[in-house]
Amino acid sequence: MKQSAFMLLAAVAVAGIVALSVTASGYPDEKATPILGIRVFAGYRDWKLISVAHEEGNLNDLRAVLGNDIAINAYRQGKLPLPDGAMIARLAWKYVASEENNKAFGRSQSFVAGDPTNIQFMVKDSQKYVATGGWGFAQFKNGKPDERADLNTCFPCHAPVKDRDFVFTRYAP
Amino acid sequence: MKQSAFMLLAAVAVAGIVALSVTASGYPDEKATPILGIRVFAGYRDWKLISVAHEEGNLNDLRAVLGNDIAINAYRQGKLPLPDGAMIARLAWKYVASEENNKAFGRSQSFVAGDPTNIQFMVKDSQKYVATGGWGFAQFKNGKPDERADLNTCFPCHAPVKDRDFVFTRYAP
Repeated sequence: MKQSAFMLLAAVAVAGIVALSVTASGYPDEKATPILGIRVFAGYRDWKLISVAHEEGNLNDLRAVLGNDIAINAYRQGKLPLPDGAMIARLAWKYVASEENNKAFGRSQSFVAGDPTNIQFMVKDSQKYVATGGWGFAQFKNGKPDERADLNTCFPCHAPVKDRDFVFTRYAP
Repeated sequence: MKQSAFMLLAAVAVAGIVALSVTASGYPDEKATPILGIRVFAGYRDWKLISVAHEEGNLNDLRAVLGNDIAINAYRQGKLPLPDGAMIARLAWKYVASEENNKAFGRSQSFVAGDPTNIQFMVKDSQKYVATGGWGFAQFKNGKPDERADLNTCFPCHAPVKDRDFVFTRYAP
C-alpha cells in the first residue's frame, strides 16, 4: 500500500519531467539519449569516490559510488540535503573471484570487479524532481537507458532513508 | 628460496632509498613523517578510481584503488610499464553488513565500507626504486607509517605480476 503510493508519486514525477540540460561540472554530455532528462555524463568516470559496497543475491556485484564536485563537497561537509547540482553515479561490476590474487595471497580470499553491469545516476534538482525528494533517477546498461518500469522502483526504495536526503551511501574516509 | 631472494632485494631497496620529494599532482604533502621517502599525500582521496575489490580472511575488507592523473592516464591507454610519477593508493575499510540497506532490499545481501583499516601507496620512480621494479611501497595506519618489517613483504607479493608492472589491479570500466 505504502509502496503503491510511492510508485504513483514516482510515476507522476516521470510524467512531469522535461529533458534537463544537465552538464556535469563542465563535462559535455556524451550520450544523445536521455532517460527522464538525464544522460550518461561524459565525465562521470572522473568523479571522486564516495564509497564502495558489495551486494550479494541476484545482484552479486561490487560497486563504487562516485560524486561530482558539488556532491563530494557536500558529503565532506556533512551538508544535508545535498544542494541542487549534486550528482551521484553508482557503478557496478560482476563479483568475480581473482585466481591471480589468490595465488599471491596463498589462499582463496580475493574478489575483484569483473564486467560492468549497469550505472545509476541520481541528479539533484529540487524544482524539477519535487515529487521524488528533489532527485532524478536514471539507470543505463551499455550506455543505453533502462526501461522506465525499472525506474519507478528507484524512489520507493530510497524513501526509507529520507532523513539522509534519500541517499544510502555514506562517505568512506 | 625465491621469496627470500625477493625479501633481500626489497631490503636492499629500503636501505638505498633516500627521502623523495614526491608531490602528488600539485598537492602539498600533508603528513610530516615519510615512510621509505613516501608520505601520505594530501590529495590522494581526490584521485580517480581504478577499481574496487573485496578481501575475505584476516583482511575482511572492502577496498578501492585510486590513481593520480599520471597513473589513470596510463591505465586508460593500456600503457605498461606505468611511467615515473604514477602513484596508486589502495584504501581499505572494514567489511560491514548494512542493516539499513538490507531492509530496503528486503533481504540480507548488502555489505558496505566500515571504519578505515589502512592505506597503501605505490609510487613509480624507476631510478630510486630500481631494486623493487621501479616501485616504492608504503603503508599507513591512522596517518602513521607502518613498521618497515611489513613493507619488506610488499614487493615479493607483487613479484608474480611482473608482466603487469607489478600492479595487481586492473582498470574497471
